[in-house]
Amino acid sequence: MEVVHVELGARRYPIYVGAGCLSELGTRLGEMGCGVRMAVVTNSTVAGHYLEPALVSLRRAGFDPATIQIPDGEEHKNLAMLSRIYDQLIEAGIERSGALVALGGGVVGDLTGFAAATYLRGVACVQVPTTLLAQVDSSIGGKTGVNHVLGKNLIGAFSQPRFVLADVETLRTLPPRELTAGLAEVIKYGVILDAPLFALLEDRIADVQALDRELLVEVVRRCCAIKASVVSADETESGLRAVLNFGHTVGHGIESITGYTRYLHGEAVAIGMVAAARVSRQLGLCGEPDVERVRSVLARCGLPTEVPAELRGEALARAMRADKKARAGAIKFVCLETIGTTRFERLSPEDIVKYL
Amino acid sequence: MEVVHVELGARRYPIYVGAGCLSELGTRLGEMGCGVRMAVVTNSTVAGHYLEPALVSLRRAGFDPATIQIPDGEEHKNLAMLSRIYDQLIEAGIERSGALVALGGGVVGDLTGFAAATYLRGVACVQVPTTLLAQVDSSIGGKTGVNHVLGKNLIGAFSQPRFVLADVETLRTLPPRELTAGLAEVIKYGVILDAPLFALLEDRIADVQALDRELLVEVVRRCCAIKASVVSADETESGLRAVLNFGHTVGHGIESITGYTRYLHGEAVAIGMVAAARVSRQLGLCGEPDVERVRSVLARCGLPTEVPAELRGEALARAMRADKKARAGAIKFVCLETIGTTRFERLSPEDIVKYL
Repeated sequence: MEVVHVELGARRYPIYVGAGCLSELGTRLGEMGCGVRMAVVTNSTVAGHYLEPALVSLRRAGFDPATIQIPDGEEHKNLAMLSRIYDQLIEAGIERSGALVALGGGVVGDLTGFAAATYLRGVACVQVPTTLLAQVDSSIGGKTGVNHVLGKNLIGAFSQPRFVLADVETLRTLPPRELTAGLAEVIKYGVILDAPLFALLEDRIADVQALDRELLVEVVRRCCAIKASVVSADETESGLRAVLNFGHTVGHGIESITGYTRYLHGEAVAIGMVAAARVSRQLGLCGEPDVERVRSVLARCGLPTEVPAELRGEALARAMRADKKARAGAIKFVCLETIGTTRFERLSPEDIVKYL
Repeated sequence: MEVVHVELGARRYPIYVGAGCLSELGTRLGEMGCGVRMAVVTNSTVAGHYLEPALVSLRRAGFDPATIQIPDGEEHKNLAMLSRIYDQLIEAGIERSGALVALGGGVVGDLTGFAAATYLRGVACVQVPTTLLAQVDSSIGGKTGVNHVLGKNLIGAFSQPRFVLADVETLRTLPPRELTAGLAEVIKYGVILDAPLFALLEDRIADVQALDRELLVEVVRRCCAIKASVVSADETESGLRAVLNFGHTVGHGIESITGYTRYLHGEAVAIGMVAAARVSRQLGLCGEPDVERVRSVLARCGLPTEVPAELRGEALARAMRADKKARAGAIKFVCLETIGTTRFERLSPEDIVKYL
């Protein structure tokens, strides 16, 4: 098992990455020192595969876990579901000393993290991500929250987990489309901050998709290390952390105007990364070969790389303007300089749309 | 104007206490450096007295304030109202750089503080308390949150304001019963940590109730200084801060079993303080004269000091057991040693009820 640390002073925490490490959940929680009564929050799909192994590991370590199941799907990441989680935490008798374990993907992680941040003014949270996207991105860094009908993640808190436990074996039950969507974020890390990782992915993307165990641990660990270093340097996204938004400005816009149903997040980000690379080239910041390398590896994964014609123009600009990261009309847009290097440019949504 | 600081490292913040200082709200917010577009959250009662002066001060300092009005009353401190506040913040176009000003008593302060802690994962919050209870207690220390049908403040976050501005002139429009209830917390500070303040109150409680301006500023400032020092030493109530719960174990229990309608919080705390003093005497920790001094000054204010006969016994014990601060059945009970000095004892709810 590999360990990466998120360096945040007194709130420093480890990310464990391994193949088969779910069985160590109880031991790791035991080392943390929380109350015996705690809760596992998961969804109906993940529960069928991994709830029992998680509970066995927790009980063997002396814990008395309650289980809270939520329905599967992003549409349940809202205040109403959060309210139901609070109800069940109270009914289960979870006290301030208790911990919440988020067992699942990004929706479970974001909801559970926010519930933990706000139940009894804060109880401990542990993230056990079971999707590639959650393992390399959403489980790390303490962004928690729920969606509002007027926008995603408009309600939430920065609240760090006590540890993250990423078992790559859980990816074997992930639908192939979700695995591929997660790869978009993996590729993003290479593009923005790690040229050798990008080259490794260009070389072995088929082996990653075939779930080569050793390669998966290596790739997930490297992504976690990049995310950890960015979060350590800028916990609340006041500056540097925004580099992680590469591809997300256009990606979020596309997700928004297609009602979050047509594309998975990673698919929209794949389109957004190619768009960001093209905007960068139009601004003279990077060359055509780099744009093509980004597009090519995404396409080989089977990810979409083009903004559909019917989504271009004013609707997309309006959606980007509504994003919570817009400040006074201008967007802090992450541009590509070369593979592994980016820079920020203040662009208007209209400029971005124009360059696509 | 007097200034007390809450020392929390990088999150250090000032409490301004004065007579007529509401007019300086805009200037103080300007010094803080937040976005021009911000929001004042207040309730219908307070709005009639102080919204216009607050808006005038803010506009004069160059701000563009939105106004969010909530109904008056503790029954509105819930997730549904929080959700409505989120809606209005989005509609008003408040961005991450924007600030929320809580203009009102504890309900407005707790709701606004929690909204600020969780809107866009956190925007700046300023507390402008207009009740005595809020000025000396709830506006300071970052406890924010909402009630759950199964208990008070079960959902919330520790999130510090950027500053607190307490204008004692706003107490002139406070209903006398609320002013008196607030005095219970003022007296509590004297009992637990400041014997000279307690002596001052014994001597001049009538002048405080008559709203002697100079005396009010002095009393509020001293209470704020005590609360600030306790919060500085223990931000998240892991230890010392629990001293502030003196009188609150029984007080909360009484509020709970009377459905939060019969007593104002301070009235229940007054009863709880006398109860705590009596429990302490039964345990041999303090003498009868100290119990009588506590009871006497509360009674002279017109505050209740006795647990009504019909509320004693098992129902009260059960209510105390359900309190979120109970850990494994035992309550960390704040006992009186002498005026100005306390100690913690682990007591069961049954023990506490027995000693009343």
